[in-house]
Amino acid sequence: MSAEIICVGTELLLGDILNSNSRYLARELADLGIAHYYQTVVGDNPDRIKKAIAIAVDRAEILIFTGGLGPTPDDLTVATIADFFKTPLSERPEIIADIEAKYARRGRKMTTSDRKQAQLPVGADILPNAKGSAPGIIWQPQANVTILTFPGVPTEMEQMWRTTAVPFLKSQGWGQATVCSRMLKFWGLREVELAEKVAEFLALENPTVAPYANWGEVKLRISARAATPEAARDLMAPVEEKLRHIAGEDCFGADEDTLATVVGQLLRDRGQTLAVAESCTGGGLGHMLTEVPGSSDYFLGGAIAYANAVKVALLGVDAGMLERQGAVSAEVAAAMAAGVRDKFDSDWGLSITGVAGPGGGTDSKPVGLVYIGVAGPGGQCHSEEYRFGSDRDREWIRHLSACSALDGLRRKLL
Amino acid sequence: MSAEIICVGTELLLGDILNSNSRYLARELADLGIAHYYQTVVGDNPDRIKKAIAIAVDRAEILIFTGGLGPTPDDLTVATIADFFKTPLSERPEIIADIEAKYARRGRKMTTSDRKQAQLPVGADILPNAKGSAPGIIWQPQANVTILTFPGVPTEMEQMWRTTAVPFLKSQGWGQATVCSRMLKFWGLREVELAEKVAEFLALENPTVAPYANWGEVKLRISARAATPEAARDLMAPVEEKLRHIAGEDCFGADEDTLATVVGQLLRDRGQTLAVAESCTGGGLGHMLTEVPGSSDYFLGGAIAYANAVKVALLGVDAGMLERQGAVSAEVAAAMAAGVRDKFDSDWGLSITGVAGPGGGTDSKPVGLVYIGVAGPGGQCHSEEYRFGSDRDREWIRHLSACSALDGLRRKLL
Repeated sequence: MSAEIICVGTELLLGDILNSNSRYLARELADLGIAHYYQTVVGDNPDRIKKAIAIAVDRAEILIFTGGLGPTPDDLTVATIADFFKTPLSERPEIIADIEAKYARRGRKMTTSDRKQAQLPVGADILPNAKGSAPGIIWQPQANVTILTFPGVPTEMEQMWRTTAVPFLKSQGWGQATVCSRMLKFWGLREVELAEKVAEFLALENPTVAPYANWGEVKLRISARAATPEAARDLMAPVEEKLRHIAGEDCFGADEDTLATVVGQLLRDRGQTLAVAESCTGGGLGHMLTEVPGSSDYFLGGAIAYANAVKVALLGVDAGMLERQGAVSAEVAAAMAAGVRDKFDSDWGLSITGVAGPGGGTDSKPVGLVYIGVAGPGGQCHSEEYRFGSDRDREWIRHLSACSALDGLRRKLL
Repeated sequence: MSAEIICVGTELLLGDILNSNSRYLARELADLGIAHYYQTVVGDNPDRIKKAIAIAVDRAEILIFTGGLGPTPDDLTVATIADFFKTPLSERPEIIADIEAKYARRGRKMTTSDRKQAQLPVGADILPNAKGSAPGIIWQPQANVTILTFPGVPTEMEQMWRTTAVPFLKSQGWGQATVCSRMLKFWGLREVELAEKVAEFLALENPTVAPYANWGEVKLRISARAATPEAARDLMAPVEEKLRHIAGEDCFGADEDTLATVVGQLLRDRGQTLAVAESCTGGGLGHMLTEVPGSSDYFLGGAIAYANAVKVALLGVDAGMLERQGAVSAEVAAAMAAGVRDKFDSDWGLSITGVAGPGGGTDSKPVGLVYIGVAGPGGQCHSEEYRFGSDRDREWIRHLSACSALDGLRRKLL
């Protein structure tokens, strides 16, 4: 029993978009223990889609399609699959009702093109789409062939996969074993440094331990294969404990944890509040903090002090000091943190000022130089210098700045 | 004459890495005007690689492989291709010399496994690798089949592609023509609405027009095929003009334009400044505005007024009105916009207040209800209601809110 991923979309053949869906699905199949030997990408062309299906049914039993489910004329996936298996389409009233209800909530009317999304092969089950209009299907058109279709929009596809496809696939017993995994997350050290520290674990066979790095965040993925989820978790637990012991405070969490959720939980535990003062990140730190539902429990708000006049007027930064030290300095970072804490009457103030580039760098203050200030409840105030490197781009420097600010506060809260 | 991209690597089937190589190559093939209808991903397994080759030679004339060229035991691509075409391998002394020279510069010694990289099919030309040790091949093993191989490391692959493969492919005259494209960008209408408005254009053959949608942004990709880039652009220009005419103000730009760059340019042209007041977006609007280098020319900063007390203390929102209307209301949005404009002494004030969810929604103020306020230089102040739908998630509602605020200001500035 093996699966093939078939991504449909001319935009993939033109290189307009990255094929992130195939990566997501590949990882999920690995976790489910379902074998997967081929991926195919094909354009919005019925003849070629049919040729791809003919090849796939010859070498796999589960065909997973993404893309081409929407209302526009180039969305052809479902009709082409039905045609390949010589099955007529029928309009499903429950899908029409679902789309109408979704549109009504947004004050929109359904169009003729929208109705196309309700046309599914006779005999196919609906794979519901909670976030968007186009549903998928789960369909066994002939013995030893099961088809699952998903929209190309990653958020819709992932939600549908988790909610409906995973329980379905598990219920069929197609996974050769249970694979469980856990992602430990780290901040403040490089992937190669972590890999050297935990080198002996990278050679393990079950569980396996593999390092990843993404935008400054370093991860270790622990994966165990066993007969039951409990047995897999029993294999992982002692390895996780040892890895956490080696990494110490550099390990900030696991799986769904983010620096923002971890900082939020620490603040909530202490019944304390936070306000932020941002220059080069322009709101990115506040945005990260408020990605967490319920963050209003501890996050009061902040000042985006992009212009120097705002740093003085709103945060009470001393104009003379700003003039002498420059906006990108340890002194100004500390004054911004203390100023926003006082202005917002919060327990903690967190500030960022730096040169995000690409312009604005000098020999003494190059692109990538960032100061982060933390003002605490006892009146203490501290700032730290970071040099993210002038070869890094604006987006990267701003992201590292916001994450480093959260990490700095996290370590103070521990 | 068409090409197929075949990416070899078990790490792709496990979802450990994103397949960025296929996107790069797809875009390059489009630019060269070489047709490309299929992409295949296959693991480091000789039998399955051979099956993929058998399928590919049946439907394409140019086979482009990435991955599996290195020195380790799972690097099997070249030997498997040679085996498929029943051709022996021979060791190339010039490759041995090249690897030895490269290793000497890094103080390393060549190992037995390294020699494998010099084993190429008899008759194949070397495709030199300036950055790494493993070379590729350019090989015509039989009539109507040309093979090009590249390492999986993107920087090596791209350098080899640009330096050797592109001149080779051009010299063969396989590009049917030059393909140029342009992406028009829209905000404020749905993909299906736009597709219906421009339906007649979606049927064009040269240039082609295709709709895309991503996170609320709708796009039309115009692609033209012609003998020269100038001729292709001449084909596109009248179509773009007609599409822009049909879409009117809903079309905000093309290619690299974003709502933030377009708003920034409009402000810069007028010599005006902007400040923002954010509640549910928590800094996301400021973050978007400051993604643009040089945004300090017109963006002064803002207030993240997450807590109600901040709306009153920092932005001067009337506490009684806040109490009566609630924080999520047209009146508070307008007061926040006017307040931040006055406080920051900017020409424009832009505000967002809403229910991002998942909690906090009520019957009268459901999740997805957002008010956006715009306060202008003449003292005018206006707010607008949006209902993004309670089935949408927090991230999506916050993104739509920030983009809609930018779009609202854009339309006022036009």
